Amino acid sequence: MSYLDRIRACNAGDLSRYRPLIVAGHEVGHVAQEIADRLTEFPAVFHVGDDTVELDPALKTAAERTAAVATVSLNFHEQGILAGWWDEPYPVAVSFNAPLLLTVERGCAPCFGFRAYGVHINGIVRDGGETKMWVARRSRSKQSHPGLLDQIVAGGQPAGLTLMENVIKECAEEAGIPAALACRARPVGAITYFGERPEGLRDDVLFNYDLDLPADFRPFAADGEVEEFYLWSLDEVAERIRDTEDFKFNCNLVIIDFLIRHGVIPADHPDYVDISRGLHI
Amino acid sequence: MSYLDRIRACNAGDLSRYRPLIVAGHEVGHVAQEIADRLTEFPAVFHVGDDTVELDPALKTAAERTAAVATVSLNFHEQGILAGWWDEPYPVAVSFNAPLLLTVERGCAPCFGFRAYGVHINGIVRDGGETKMWVARRSRSKQSHPGLLDQIVAGGQPAGLTLMENVIKECAEEAGIPAALACRARPVGAITYFGERPEGLRDDVLFNYDLDLPADFRPFAADGEVEEFYLWSLDEVAERIRDTEDFKFNCNLVIIDFLIRHGVIPADHPDYVDISRGLHI
Repeated sequence: MSYLDRIRACNAGDLSRYRPLIVAGHEVGHVAQEIADRLTEFPAVFHVGDDTVELDPALKTAAERTAAVATVSLNFHEQGILAGWWDEPYPVAVSFNAPLLLTVERGCAPCFGFRAYGVHINGIVRDGGETKMWVARRSRSKQSHPGLLDQIVAGGQPAGLTLMENVIKECAEEAGIPAALACRARPVGAITYFGERPEGLRDDVLFNYDLDLPADFRPFAADGEVEEFYLWSLDEVAERIRDTEDFKFNCNLVIIDFLIRHGVIPADHPDYVDISRGLHI
Repeated sequence: MSYLDRIRACNAGDLSRYRPLIVAGHEVGHVAQEIADRLTEFPAVFHVGDDTVELDPALKTAAERTAAVATVSLNFHEQGILAGWWDEPYPVAVSFNAPLLLTVERGCAPCFGFRAYGVHINGIVRDGGETKMWVARRSRSKQSHPGLLDQIVAGGQPAGLTLMENVIKECAEEAGIPAALACRARPVGAITYFGERPEGLRDDVLFNYDLDLPADFRPFAADGEVEEFYLWSLDEVAERIRDTEDFKFNCNLVIIDFLIRHGVIPADHPDYVDISRGLHI
């Protein structure tokens, strides 16, 4: 396996089965054939055409659209179609800063191929000459990707929080990082991927941060979402990314971006250009 | 103006006027209508079709292809079609590490839309709490982009040198940076752009490096290609990028990438996602 394989795994799938989902005249999602078939059962909410699926344009406000789609989401949830349910409202808009078109339950976003956003934090310790990275093992009881490796802190970006508010909240909940430390997290770029996963179509943007942590800081899982934390050398992290499937699919990309930015992957690596581009598809 | 405008300026143009250039069965360039018309004068070298231009497949080796294309390049140079002539052989291949298909004179690459590579080095001084960046003003006598602002060191990547050999060579020539210091330049990613410029089609990959320089180091132009060096705060550099056209077109992107990686551009910047993606088109 290779770094590039990890990137390809996030951008895989047969996209010919999808048709654009239109909301208020904007293409903001993609619906698979089998989901489109099910949406025909909700003609007051979705107009399923041959080439597109459109949210009923008579729904004029974000509140109206949110309520209408929620009836469908709940139905899908009851039928066991969704991979999970978080009770977290995700914003849907033309772009990250554009006016809200509607909010949907997080577990429903991949079902409609709505773009979703997250914050991922690389927790770094500079111990003398060596740089180490904190890695979290996700709790075995988590509803998604139980037991896999993850950044020290990562979370979806819900509606109603700024990115930094979310970073501070997730840092406290997932790793016991105090706000005074968390607010030093430095934004280092956004990575993107677009591909099929078991839960649906992931059209995701991850806002990445580097956070330097004191050598004597010890993370702890305040909310029980993490089973254990490890402090590993960058070589060990890089090896696990390349040679194992221990990391959650998208966490691989966050670390590959880190390894590129910090010169751990040399510029003459055979896949260097493809890796750099592959993180921003 | 905005950061995004600088990125758009590197990715502009009407690409419908171009047709793929095929070498040994691989699409490795793009030829504009007016160049294709001129290539019909060289039927022993180029086969100009309605949909593609093909280098004569009877040319079997890199040496044969290089010699054949050189006759055309020289003719173009004599006719004043090329924007410049460097006497630097640029490699043409399917990808950076792939076997060489031919080499062409650097000044000829945009004419055929061959992908070209460069190394760009951000020269950084961490002076107490503040980070500053060395900026070079290109000599008024340079054949391309005279008088514009540039990285402290930047250069095209010719055939026959490794990336680090080129970094060390350019650091010595352009800024008097000794090899022992230059070899500490840290690769931080590749950025790409694809668009029309006055000299032709630029399909470029820039390998970016960050180089921490001692506070008492003073660059000097060993080869006369730089008129003056400035040591500016990141705020001043960012302002010049946004609000002036003082920087050479592609140097803007190298610095925007730096500003993204180092948290100078905040994650909630309205164009953040588009900037991150725009650097890797």
